[in-house]
Amino acid sequence: MRIVIIGGVAGGMSAATRARRLLPEAEIVVVERSGHVSFANCGLPYYVGGVIEQRSSLLLQTPQSLAARFGLDVRVGHEVVGVDASERTVEVRELASGASTTMAYDALVLSPGATPVRPPIPGIERALTLRDIEDTDALAAAIAGAGRAVVIGGGFIGVELAENLRHAGLSVDLVEATEQVLAPLDPEMASPVHARMREHGVGLHLRSQVVAIDAEGVELHDGRRLDADLVVAAIGVRPDTRLATLAGLMVGERGGIVVDEHGRTSDPHIYAVGDAVEKSDAHDGSAVLVPLANTANLQGRRVADVIAGRPSSMRPVQGTAIVGVFGLQVATTGWNEKRLRASGRPYRAIHTHPLDHAGYFPGAATMSLKLLVDPESDAILGAQGVGSAGVDKRLDVIATAMRGGLRARELADLELSYAPQFGSAKDAVNMLGYVDENLADEVTHSIQWHELPAALAGGATLIDVRSASEHAAGAIPGAVLLPVDELRSRLGDVTSNDVIVHCAVGVRGHVAAMMLAAPGRRVRNLDGGYKTWAAGTGE
Amino acid sequence: MRIVIIGGVAGGMSAATRARRLLPEAEIVVVERSGHVSFANCGLPYYVGGVIEQRSSLLLQTPQSLAARFGLDVRVGHEVVGVDASERTVEVRELASGASTTMAYDALVLSPGATPVRPPIPGIERALTLRDIEDTDALAAAIAGAGRAVVIGGGFIGVELAENLRHAGLSVDLVEATEQVLAPLDPEMASPVHARMREHGVGLHLRSQVVAIDAEGVELHDGRRLDADLVVAAIGVRPDTRLATLAGLMVGERGGIVVDEHGRTSDPHIYAVGDAVEKSDAHDGSAVLVPLANTANLQGRRVADVIAGRPSSMRPVQGTAIVGVFGLQVATTGWNEKRLRASGRPYRAIHTHPLDHAGYFPGAATMSLKLLVDPESDAILGAQGVGSAGVDKRLDVIATAMRGGLRARELADLELSYAPQFGSAKDAVNMLGYVDENLADEVTHSIQWHELPAALAGGATLIDVRSASEHAAGAIPGAVLLPVDELRSRLGDVTSNDVIVHCAVGVRGHVAAMMLAAPGRRVRNLDGGYKTWAAGTGE
Repeated sequence: MRIVIIGGVAGGMSAATRARRLLPEAEIVVVERSGHVSFANCGLPYYVGGVIEQRSSLLLQTPQSLAARFGLDVRVGHEVVGVDASERTVEVRELASGASTTMAYDALVLSPGATPVRPPIPGIERALTLRDIEDTDALAAAIAGAGRAVVIGGGFIGVELAENLRHAGLSVDLVEATEQVLAPLDPEMASPVHARMREHGVGLHLRSQVVAIDAEGVELHDGRRLDADLVVAAIGVRPDTRLATLAGLMVGERGGIVVDEHGRTSDPHIYAVGDAVEKSDAHDGSAVLVPLANTANLQGRRVADVIAGRPSSMRPVQGTAIVGVFGLQVATTGWNEKRLRASGRPYRAIHTHPLDHAGYFPGAATMSLKLLVDPESDAILGAQGVGSAGVDKRLDVIATAMRGGLRARELADLELSYAPQFGSAKDAVNMLGYVDENLADEVTHSIQWHELPAALAGGATLIDVRSASEHAAGAIPGAVLLPVDELRSRLGDVTSNDVIVHCAVGVRGHVAAMMLAAPGRRVRNLDGGYKTWAAGTGE
Repeated sequence: MRIVIIGGVAGGMSAATRARRLLPEAEIVVVERSGHVSFANCGLPYYVGGVIEQRSSLLLQTPQSLAARFGLDVRVGHEVVGVDASERTVEVRELASGASTTMAYDALVLSPGATPVRPPIPGIERALTLRDIEDTDALAAAIAGAGRAVVIGGGFIGVELAENLRHAGLSVDLVEATEQVLAPLDPEMASPVHARMREHGVGLHLRSQVVAIDAEGVELHDGRRLDADLVVAAIGVRPDTRLATLAGLMVGERGGIVVDEHGRTSDPHIYAVGDAVEKSDAHDGSAVLVPLANTANLQGRRVADVIAGRPSSMRPVQGTAIVGVFGLQVATTGWNEKRLRASGRPYRAIHTHPLDHAGYFPGAATMSLKLLVDPESDAILGAQGVGSAGVDKRLDVIATAMRGGLRARELADLELSYAPQFGSAKDAVNMLGYVDENLADEVTHSIQWHELPAALAGGATLIDVRSASEHAAGAIPGAVLLPVDELRSRLGDVTSNDVIVHCAVGVRGHVAAMMLAAPGRRVRNLDGGYKTWAAGTGE
């Protein structure tokens, strides 16, 4: 049996090594266009920035080491230029010599990844991209002696590159077409990311397009110019479907190779994994493109299982992802509010700003969390987190709760590890559950930051229950100060029957809202407090 | 309606504040024997050690602040000395004056906590304990000028105190009756904790008992003496059932107050929460004592819900806990192997030694994880972890998976957040799932470190597939060296039909085991490799 695997990183290499373990006798050939296999894709920006100092750290395996340990026939610098699905052969060209050979396969695994998008901007050929070791070397070489860089695109890679170019000592401008970086975040969650990037000297140009690139820099849609010795395009990626097209395989509406739950393409002997394929969304089963390494690796393993005749199927994807931004952890899972709203799906949003560990223990840092919940079923639809520490843990716990089918209110009951340096007796995740159960049971009612203008225009009274000094340092227009610790003795001061309370983060607001409950009165607590409102209404 | 709550920390204070929010009109009285309420219980050792510098950091609320914000009537320095359950009254004594008053209640909540065990050792009255702020002040005062301390007991508090006394500059000996500290760990997981404590200068006296305490120090069972200016007893705690006994309430065989799933004691108007009560074990529903702050806080909230007429019930407990030990994170959830073996329950054990984040990114640290699985249902029975970073996250994820009813093999499919500074594309938790599915599907077979002697005595051949230099640096007696990267070409060298392979942590061993599979041959991979074997056979 011969298995031919095209693409020697992540999904492809996971497929190759798992296939070897399960099928000791199989001939396994890995064809890789670039000069390297099994390199640390996700580490490339950090080598560019000098955080990872040794280039050799990126190269996890070589063809030689893979031959010795796994008996793999790894051919780097080779490209598959033809697929004959009916004959089950591929035509493989050695890039250096141009010589081609035809190779038969019993099973073919496509793991070509995704290609950086290069929009048709005049001068785009001057822009560098980052996909493989060769790109990394080119970028590292371009940095040497460069003083100013422009990064086009504020996605995960663009943001990582901006940080790393700053780390390497360059001045950096980042140009993003939408109103925010990191599209999986909702705008009020992206706001602290913008602030952190600006604090670290990144020039952030939102709602901006690059219309031309030349030797001196870039020109924006509004005529502004940004000088640059170096321009990097990180606008996004699209599935590499060149081979799938050659083989006559079905490509989906999202632009990825269509596979079934076993990773099989429209040809029963051809499989595909990783960034090149469309996945099934965990919430609604729709086809989605989620170019993430964890899913690619898992799919590689699963496809090897299937080829080896083991029952195995692909999980749907939640889109759990994390990125570091100048010391901030930014993580998401599931759907965001933008997507829920666009799809017309009802949801309940919860914002909190808990500490990563007990406040009385040194070093506690505030994070911002957001939970999105189905108001009918109480299912967890998504979550987002931003903060200096502990965000990764909370998002992983929530992603796991989602996979386990826990309802949002059941987050209150999770028994999480607590000691004061690691968490809180009521952990940040538990607190999300507490808030959810109060909302689900209508113990309390909340209002979102973006709903506030309409409510105030409709005649609601807004009460700031923080202290006078907090109020003086920054207040929501129209808010009346009435500190929570005075409220109990001044309940008579509140005569409105449509009251909105707010504090800094929502906790004191909840106490106040419960105190103000009265027959015939509507009381709502501003979700996430002043902090979420400020993030949502700022930029 | 009057609610009287006895005990103003954790469970008691959670009950009081939740009751206030739900019942704006209720009279809520909190009676606390010590001089303080709502103090940071879990922070006390860290104030003793000077890690938490300000005593005021420990005092989260005062009677005054609780009156202002929550309208609570908090009486510190008051003790309940009588309960008349039939009349629904308590007798409350002011400790300073000795004056008593009788107070009626509609609902009574007992949250007295647990009392430090003081064994009948001659001189035990010289030993300090740590339960409240007054104890903390006494211990802090005793440290001043002291040079040597003995800590009796290697539980969570004893270990935390040993670290903090070292941090305060004292010489420290810790005396523990069993063969290991931190009883929730299995011995091979406790071994790195012992090593870390010794590296930091703690004199560790395992399998040792203190038989006498005097002005110069302590005497051990074998006649050895340990000099000490200061002796701290941290032998454990037992539920404080004094009030329950006064009230004629049912106390269980484990020594805790018996409550139903709503937190109600054997008297329908008396509730109890926290360390004083018996909980229901998440696996088998048996009564257990789990004195942990997260459960106490949650129970306090739930009891307030019940008193307010809201449907609410207590969750069973898994016993998720974590402790820091000189920079090590040590965490557990569920049952350990000792308990499974003692109960006769079948299990499968998995040991891994993954990195907390991608090895190519600076600062990656190795942790040790252990997963215990039901071999029939593949249910996760428990987990343990020890390491410098990322252990808290992995244990919280596993604890959440257990709550969600995920099978061990489903850990492979969890979609966890990955960027190289936070995790791995195949996260440590995913890897546990991979190993489990290989074992469950009999793709591979493992052997535990403690099963090795019998297997070797039975004629099995042990092959070390690590490199020659690793083998030279420390090997298992009887192991034959055959590096994995040479094995493919030397398969004929292996003639035994009962083969055990091992590497450093189990990964290369798995590759080798798959290569050596042959009809009629039994091949097992040493679970957790040399590292687990060394931890299990050392101390």
